[in-house]
Amino acid sequence: MTTILINGDAANPVSPADRGLAYGDGLFETLRISQGRIVFLAEHLARMQAGCQRLGLPFDPSAFEPDLERLLQESGNNDAVLKLLVTRGAGGRGYRPAADVIPTRIASLHPLPPITNTGAKAFVCRTRLAHQPALAGIKHLNRLEQVLASQEWPDDSFMEGLMLDYQDHLIEGTRSNLFMVTDGHICTPDLQACGVAGILRQFLLEQLTPAPAITKIDLPALFRADELFFCNSVLGILPVSSLLSGAETRRYTSHTVTLQAQSLFTTALQTC
Amino acid sequence: MTTILINGDAANPVSPADRGLAYGDGLFETLRISQGRIVFLAEHLARMQAGCQRLGLPFDPSAFEPDLERLLQESGNNDAVLKLLVTRGAGGRGYRPAADVIPTRIASLHPLPPITNTGAKAFVCRTRLAHQPALAGIKHLNRLEQVLASQEWPDDSFMEGLMLDYQDHLIEGTRSNLFMVTDGHICTPDLQACGVAGILRQFLLEQLTPAPAITKIDLPALFRADELFFCNSVLGILPVSSLLSGAETRRYTSHTVTLQAQSLFTTALQTC
Repeated sequence: MTTILINGDAANPVSPADRGLAYGDGLFETLRISQGRIVFLAEHLARMQAGCQRLGLPFDPSAFEPDLERLLQESGNNDAVLKLLVTRGAGGRGYRPAADVIPTRIASLHPLPPITNTGAKAFVCRTRLAHQPALAGIKHLNRLEQVLASQEWPDDSFMEGLMLDYQDHLIEGTRSNLFMVTDGHICTPDLQACGVAGILRQFLLEQLTPAPAITKIDLPALFRADELFFCNSVLGILPVSSLLSGAETRRYTSHTVTLQAQSLFTTALQTC
Repeated sequence: MTTILINGDAANPVSPADRGLAYGDGLFETLRISQGRIVFLAEHLARMQAGCQRLGLPFDPSAFEPDLERLLQESGNNDAVLKLLVTRGAGGRGYRPAADVIPTRIASLHPLPPITNTGAKAFVCRTRLAHQPALAGIKHLNRLEQVLASQEWPDDSFMEGLMLDYQDHLIEGTRSNLFMVTDGHICTPDLQACGVAGILRQFLLEQLTPAPAITKIDLPALFRADELFFCNSVLGILPVSSLLSGAETRRYTSHTVTLQAQSLFTTALQTC
């Protein structure tokens, strides 16, 4: 069930000179199809639009609309994943983009991966995230930090790796955002300097009660926390049962806010 | 005169699921062909090999040898540029690489771009380089910082943009390394935290007299310097005649060490 449309056509090739391949010069989104609906569609397209503005990439994500319609139809009534990717196309003088950019638009349909809603094992990655405010928040194609971190997986029983910056602040999971609960206070890391500002993270920031705070969080604070979960707009809410950091393991048994977040996500799948 | 071989064959396609496109998960090299020889070939392949080790990419750059032979033949006796690019291929679970990686190898032949050997205008970019020691030095495919900087070009009369890190240290040009001469002392920026360790930079570090120092350099030091040049193993030595920083311009009239570097490069084109 993997269909790929390149500039609207399954028969189009990717140029080996595409700047997405040469420089990671582009953006992507992964979206959840649930019960025949694309969840958080407007939010995903808005984030891609913001990313295009940040990169100076002249592209309107609404160009994906016919592709979305076609792939949604192809999904039948099965839950699935949609991936949208845009690059600055081929051309330009080295790093300098061409004046007449023709972006490359790739839309693809994938099966929904296995989803864990019960307590999961997580670990702290050695790979750190660099501070780069010019690229923070957007979902661009320069993902080597995540690729490096993903090679640290201790074994397949772990569900997510937690990434810190070089100032020892927690930022996010390799493919998710992070929420922490301590004494009833909910917080999530500040992403001004690095990290991807997730669509589900933003939804939870607006919907959770009490309202979460955006703060700097370090590892000792995480070890003192009562509750911890990751979120991802495809995979939903991932409760953390244990966190491995070096030789130390912290177990989490409280999941009160996590259950609230899961309930909000279930509603979002039907209405957002 | 652009020929592209993908895994050794001009007819092979690039998969839209290639991790080079999805995550910038790979490396590249650009090499100069001069008088029927590939200049610094061993050094370029060694840097790619070091990059593969850093990224955990199981690939031996000597796999490019038949491609190199074919493209060198195709170049006739014309000076030209060879680009080698390797990615982790398609597959894997999201960011996690597949266990059975089949790398994608792309070799292409391009015309030599126009080359400037006389004094050139340079400017200081607003875009900064992030500190990421895990990726510093190698020539990976995550190049959005350079793409952003390359959109700042004031006009076509400028030949290179100079990039600083967030600690106000000079690091490199958008597509070159930097050498500075002050009171007869030669130095080039430290690249432990960011930047690409250029092949020609390394050659000049070994060959220039007096021996250059690797140091931290800030903008005031550059404005006090007598002489400034960029180096790139395709474009050679680019003497800087003026540097624009904000509203200020510094002019450089001394080119003694630059001439020495140009002479070394001319020799390298024939012997390295």
